[in-house]
Amino acid sequence: MSSATSVTAGLLVIGDEILSGRTKDVNIGATADFCTDLGIELKEVRVVSDETDDIVAAVNALRSRYTYVFTTGGIGPTHDDITADAIAKAFGVALPINPEARAMLEARWRETGTQVNEARLRMARIPEGADLIVNSVSAAPGFRIGNVHVMAGVPIIMRAMLEALAPTLQGGRRVLSETVRAAVGEGTVGGPLGELQAQYPDVKMGSYPQMGQGRVMTELVLRSSDAQRLAEATTKVRAMVDAAHRAAGVEPPQD
Amino acid sequence: MSSATSVTAGLLVIGDEILSGRTKDVNIGATADFCTDLGIELKEVRVVSDETDDIVAAVNALRSRYTYVFTTGGIGPTHDDITADAIAKAFGVALPINPEARAMLEARWRETGTQVNEARLRMARIPEGADLIVNSVSAAPGFRIGNVHVMAGVPIIMRAMLEALAPTLQGGRRVLSETVRAAVGEGTVGGPLGELQAQYPDVKMGSYPQMGQGRVMTELVLRSSDAQRLAEATTKVRAMVDAAHRAAGVEPPQD
Repeated sequence: MSSATSVTAGLLVIGDEILSGRTKDVNIGATADFCTDLGIELKEVRVVSDETDDIVAAVNALRSRYTYVFTTGGIGPTHDDITADAIAKAFGVALPINPEARAMLEARWRETGTQVNEARLRMARIPEGADLIVNSVSAAPGFRIGNVHVMAGVPIIMRAMLEALAPTLQGGRRVLSETVRAAVGEGTVGGPLGELQAQYPDVKMGSYPQMGQGRVMTELVLRSSDAQRLAEATTKVRAMVDAAHRAAGVEPPQD
Repeated sequence: MSSATSVTAGLLVIGDEILSGRTKDVNIGATADFCTDLGIELKEVRVVSDETDDIVAAVNALRSRYTYVFTTGGIGPTHDDITADAIAKAFGVALPINPEARAMLEARWRETGTQVNEARLRMARIPEGADLIVNSVSAAPGFRIGNVHVMAGVPIIMRAMLEALAPTLQGGRRVLSETVRAAVGEGTVGGPLGELQAQYPDVKMGSYPQMGQGRVMTELVLRSSDAQRLAEATTKVRAMVDAAHRAAGVEPPQD
């Protein structure tokens, strides 16, 4: 199926704590929502551990495939925060203390009476040639190098960085969506939905069973950047679902 | 850092709805917990869209690297459920209707008075040579082929399938963990923690800032499969954190 937008993204989530289950990721969903709002098509997510070679391989795979790459995690002050090192290695550049980043951190540390030490100064190491991404929450900046945007893993900081980035990103055409709710199972609508999908290749149709509500329910979601084609396809899907309700002798969903 | 276990896994989450943000994934966290409990090291997660080539490429990359591969999503009855097709393609085998899978489905359909149709029978298509994974929730089975375990995307069904799989998986050595809470920031403990990590390469030490609680707090998590080395390292980390508390003039965390 052709994509509704030509601006694409890949997300790399970095951190042993996600892979061990100790921390439950919420940054994938936040980045997905952010991309959809901007008309950027998030095409792939990878989660890797805090190991340099794994990060380098994943960043290089993603940055060659997608318009934008976002990374989250591993830019704090401790020994397991190696994302900046890995990104510098992936781009083949040095990782010096960045004077602007250091000034941002020192300004915050003066306000909070925090002592400057070697661990904290790790957070001012920025790959050569990168631009900083402002961190309004805790000052330690992210950075952009090439098409790769390196952000913190702490969700509130990551979301603040995404907001800071938004004006710098070129969005695709906004993707519109319609939802049709059916009071029958996926197996009932699957055949006719597949036929409608074939008639409307430019309107992406998804089918999502709603489990655990004590009744059979399926949500059909249609997405397209073409409002008129979306409206046409939605009308046909609604008619198909209405027919399925009548054939099954069930009431349409009320909500 | 050397791994505490030699049994590894990769997870592939399949579905446009995760990448669009419409559905927030919970299967990554559930699989991570499951693997940790069994002593299996989850090394990598990928999320890809409902596109055959993307699924094939990801499955082939993961199955060559890890002991086990798990996939979630895309095994329902609608046209966008193409996981079985993609797995058959990845393994170069046919995708016939599996008599055992068909019998499981038909038994459930008889109970519920559900009509057999072409869309529903899609769920009985199983790659040649695969074993079925029982689905106690909604009957439509998953399957195992080679080291790849194909499961539903609906979380309650996915968890039931994991439970069904557990006895068939060979776990690694169980990884033990200890948590030390510090009432100081990551930047304060980062330096000495890095030194302790260097002394105990077989005990993996992670540092996790606790944000948004109205106070500075850092959790240090130590993991090892060697109980004695873990205890030794934990004692040293506790002593380091106690010293940091005294130096900062703060009370240790009470909880």
